Amino acid sequence: MNAMDPLPLYRQLASHYLNAIDNGTLAVGARMPSVRTLMARHSVSLSTALQACRELEQQGVLEARPRSGYFVRARTRALAPAVEPVLHVADPAQYVGIHERVSAITARSLQADVQTNLGGACGAPELYPNEALSRTAQRVLRQKPMLFGENAPHNGEPSFRLTLAQRALTHGMQLTTDDIIVAHGCVEALNLALRAVAQPGDIIAVESPTFFGLLQILETLGMRALEIPTSPQTGMSLEALQRAAETYPELKAVVVVPNFQNPLGSIMPDATKQALVAWCEQRDIALIEDDTYSALTNDDVPLRALKAWDKTGNVIHCASLHKVVSPGMRLGWIAPGKWLARCQMLKYAQTRPNEALNQLVLADYMATPAYDRHLRRLRQHLRTQRLQVADAVAAYFPEETRLSVPSGGLGLWVELPDQISSREVFERGLDQGIRIAPGMMFSNSTRFDHFIRLSVGLPYTPEVERAIRALARIVDRMGRVAA
Amino acid sequence: MNAMDPLPLYRQLASHYLNAIDNGTLAVGARMPSVRTLMARHSVSLSTALQACRELEQQGVLEARPRSGYFVRARTRALAPAVEPVLHVADPAQYVGIHERVSAITARSLQADVQTNLGGACGAPELYPNEALSRTAQRVLRQKPMLFGENAPHNGEPSFRLTLAQRALTHGMQLTTDDIIVAHGCVEALNLALRAVAQPGDIIAVESPTFFGLLQILETLGMRALEIPTSPQTGMSLEALQRAAETYPELKAVVVVPNFQNPLGSIMPDATKQALVAWCEQRDIALIEDDTYSALTNDDVPLRALKAWDKTGNVIHCASLHKVVSPGMRLGWIAPGKWLARCQMLKYAQTRPNEALNQLVLADYMATPAYDRHLRRLRQHLRTQRLQVADAVAAYFPEETRLSVPSGGLGLWVELPDQISSREVFERGLDQGIRIAPGMMFSNSTRFDHFIRLSVGLPYTPEVERAIRALARIVDRMGRVAA
Ligand SMILES: Cc1ncc(COP(=O)(O)O)c(C=O)c1O
Ligand SMILES: Cc1ncc(COP(=O)(O)O)c(C=O)c1O
Repeated sequence: MNAMDPLPLYRQLASHYLNAIDNGTLAVGARMPSVRTLMARHSVSLSTALQACRELEQQGVLEARPRSGYFVRARTRALAPAVEPVLHVADPAQYVGIHERVSAITARSLQADVQTNLGGACGAPELYPNEALSRTAQRVLRQKPMLFGENAPHNGEPSFRLTLAQRALTHGMQLTTDDIIVAHGCVEALNLALRAVAQPGDIIAVESPTFFGLLQILETLGMRALEIPTSPQTGMSLEALQRAAETYPELKAVVVVPNFQNPLGSIMPDATKQALVAWCEQRDIALIEDDTYSALTNDDVPLRALKAWDKTGNVIHCASLHKVVSPGMRLGWIAPGKWLARCQMLKYAQTRPNEALNQLVLADYMATPAYDRHLRRLRQHLRTQRLQVADAVAAYFPEETRLSVPSGGLGLWVELPDQISSREVFERGLDQGIRIAPGMMFSNSTRFDHFIRLSVGLPYTPEVERAIRALARIVDRMGRVAA
Repeated sequence: MNAMDPLPLYRQLASHYLNAIDNGTLAVGARMPSVRTLMARHSVSLSTALQACRELEQQGVLEARPRSGYFVRARTRALAPAVEPVLHVADPAQYVGIHERVSAITARSLQADVQTNLGGACGAPELYPNEALSRTAQRVLRQKPMLFGENAPHNGEPSFRLTLAQRALTHGMQLTTDDIIVAHGCVEALNLALRAVAQPGDIIAVESPTFFGLLQILETLGMRALEIPTSPQTGMSLEALQRAAETYPELKAVVVVPNFQNPLGSIMPDATKQALVAWCEQRDIALIEDDTYSALTNDDVPLRALKAWDKTGNVIHCASLHKVVSPGMRLGWIAPGKWLARCQMLKYAQTRPNEALNQLVLADYMATPAYDRHLRRLRQHLRTQRLQVADAVAAYFPEETRLSVPSGGLGLWVELPDQISSREVFERGLDQGIRIAPGMMFSNSTRFDHFIRLSVGLPYTPEVERAIRALARIVDRMGRVAA
C-alpha cells in the first residue's frame, strides 16, 4: 500500500484484490484471505481490512458466508458466454430510414407509462453532484449580476474551455482553449463534425452496432452509414474497415466510440487506436471520435483518446459531460482539428454560442477535488450496478443468452436466443411499465434484432430486480412459443 | 384619461400627445399645451401634467425652451428622406457564398478591440431584468435540488411552453403546449424549420435585404436564397414574390420577418399578412415566419403574427426571447404546424431537449406582472434611443444619407451616398474601436453595399454620440475622395 496515493488505504487494498480476482489469481469460489491475514500481510488496521472486504462485497465481488469469511462470488462473466461478434459488412444500398424506427420507438416510450427505465444511457439523478452544482450555480449568479443580460462568449466560456483542455491532458490530448468549441452535448458536436467534413449523400463508416443517435443524425443529414463489424471486446475491426474502404473508395469519414462503445462497451486497444489514426490520415479520411463514456471506467487509469495520436488535425474529438457530471446540463464539446474555423462557423449558424451559466458552474466545479471524488464514487456505483444487472441477467434469462460485461460505461449489451424479436420484447416490456432499448435501434440492418441494451445507471433496487425478472419471463415465453 | 387603464395617468397622457404628434396634429415646432392647460383639459394634477411632459422630453419628442414651455422637436423623420426600396429580383444563379463574408466580418470584429458596438442586434445588458431573473433562478435551484441530475423533458418544459402559448394569444395565435418545441434561440428554430420543409439545393424566398444569419443558415444547409424586394415600410412585396414564383415554380418555402424586419424595421400590414398566408397555402409553399422583434414595439398594441391566419398548419412560427427578456439565455421556440413531428425529430437529432433551468426561470418570470413592466420599460428605452441615434445620423451624416425610423426593433437601416462602400466604413470604424454591421452582410447581391445597420440597443451616452460623429466623418471623407 502506498501512503502517497490519494486513495484511502482501504480502497487501495480493495483495488489490489479486485485485480487479483479479475485476472484469475483468486478464482471464483476461492476464499478471500481472512481479515487477520490482511492486517498482517499489508500492515493495516482491523478497520481498514474490514472496510476493504465490505467494499468488495458491496461491489458484488465477494460474498460473506456466515462464520466462514468472504468468498469470491460466482461472476456473470463466468456464467454467460460473451456476445457473438457479427462480422458481415453492410451494403449502403441496403440502407433504410432508421430515423423512423428510432422516432417511432421514442414516441412509443414517451406515451407509455414507464415505471422502470432500463432503456436510457444515463445514471440515476442521485449519482450526480447535484447539491454541489446547485450551490456553485447560486454563487455564480450572485457573483455575476449581469449574467442574464449579456451575450455569451463565442465558442464557449474561456474558463470552461481551459478546464476542459486541462482535463484532456489526462487522456493524452494536448489542447488549448482556442482548439475547443463548447456545444449542446456530444450530439451537437457530432452534427457539427459531420457537417464540417461531409456533404449529403456521402458515405460515413460507423461501428455496427452503434449508438442509434448517430444513425439518426446521419439520416437527418442525408448521409449514408456504412456499418463496420465491431467486436464487443476490441471495437471496430480495422481489417473490416480496410476491406470496406476498398469497396467504397469514396468513403468520407469514420466515426468511432473508442472507449466503452455504445452499445457494446468495447475498448479499442491503444495499438489499434494508433493504427486507425494513421490509416485515416494516409487516406485523407476524416476521423471523428465520440468520447462520451471514457470517464466512466472501473479503475482510475485514464483511457487514451484517438486524438492523442493526432499530429495533423485529422481527428475530430467530440465529448460530453452529460452522463459524467450533469444530465441536467446539455454540455459537450468538440476539438475539430483542421476543421476548427468551419466548425466555429457551423456552430454559430446552427445554435449560436452556448449559454454561459452552466459553463461557469462546471469550470468552477471541475477544477476542484470534489469533481475527482464524484468521479470515483460514480465509477464505483456503476461497477457495482453493472455486476448486479449482469448477475441478474445470467440468473434469470434463458440459458442461450449471451452477455459481455464491459469494464465501464452505462449499458449492457445482451444477445437473446436468435428467434426472439427485441422489438416485441420492448413492446411487452412497456406494457408492464418497463423500458429497454431494442437492438434494432442500433443498426440499419436486421442483424441485431435479437439483442437488447439494458441500462446499468439505476441503483439495483428490488424494483430493478423485478423488472429484469419480468423481462426474463417475457423472453422465456417468447422462446417457448417460437420453439 | 381612463382610470381603468393599467398605465399610470401620466403615461396615458404622454401617449395621447405622442399620437397627436405622430399623426401631425401637433406639427414640428408647435408649442405643446401648457402644463396649466393640460391640468384643466384632462383633470389631472400638476405633477401628472409635468411628468407627462418630461416623459415626452426624455423620449426626444419635446424640447423645453427656457421660459417658453415645451415644443415639438424637429424630428429625424422630417429631416432624412426614407430609405429607397430596391426593386430588383435576384437570380439564384447569382448566388455567392455569403457565409464567407459573414464569417470574415465576424472574425474581424472579434479580433478587433471594439469599444462601441453599434453592430449588434441586442439591447444593452442593463435594459434586461437581470436581478429578477437571477433571483428567480436561485429560487428554482433551491426548489428543485435534483435539477442538474435529471434529463430535461422532451420538446421543452411544459410550464414554459404553456406560458409561451398563453403569451402567443396576444399576437392572435391559438397554440397549446403540445404545438411548441423549445429551441436554442430563433436561430435553431430557423434551422429546424428549413430542414423540415426543404432539402439541400432547394430554393427559398427571403426578404432583400434580410438578416444575415438567415443567409448563413441557408448557405450551411446547401439551400439557395431567392431575394424578394422588400419595402422599408410594408415588408416583402407580394407582387414581387408572385413574379419570382412564376420564374421559379420549384420554390419550396418563404421566410419572412413580418414585424420589425431586420434590417429594415418594416411591418407588413395585416391585409398583406393574410394574403401571404393564403397565397403560400394555395401553392403548397411552406411559410416560415421569424418573430424575433414583435414584442419590441413602441406602443403597447400587439402586432399580429402570420400564424394568426394559419388554418392548415402551413405556417411555421419561429420566435425568440433572446432580445426581449434575456440575451444571456439562448431561448427561442418553434410552432411547426403540420411539420410538428418532423421538427421534434430534428430537434432531438440536432441538440436534444434544451436544459430545464432557464426555461423554468422564464416560465415563472413571464407569468408575472413584472414581465409586462419590463416590456414597457424596454420599449420606452428603445424608442428614445432610436430617436436619438436617428437624430444624430440626420445631424452629422452627409446630406444625401437616407434613413427610415421604424416604430420598433433594435436597428436603424441607413442608406449612404451610393459610391460609399459599407465594408470600408466597417473597417475604418473598427480601426477606431467602433463596430457597425455593413450592408453587404444582408444580401447575396451587391445592392446594399452602401448601406449600414446601426444598433439602437445602447443607451445614448456621449460615447455613442462620439462614435456616430466619428462614423459620419469617415463617410464624409470617403465621399469627398470618391467625388
Ligand atoms: C456514444 C454516444 N454519443 C453521444 C451520446 C449523447 O451525448 P450527449 O448527451 O452529450 O449529447 C450518447 C448518448 O446516449 C452516446 O451513447
Ligand atoms: C430576424 C432575426 N432572427 C433571428 C435572430 C437571432 O435570434 P436568436 O438570438 O433568438 O437565435 C436575429 C438576431 O439578430 C434576427 O435579427
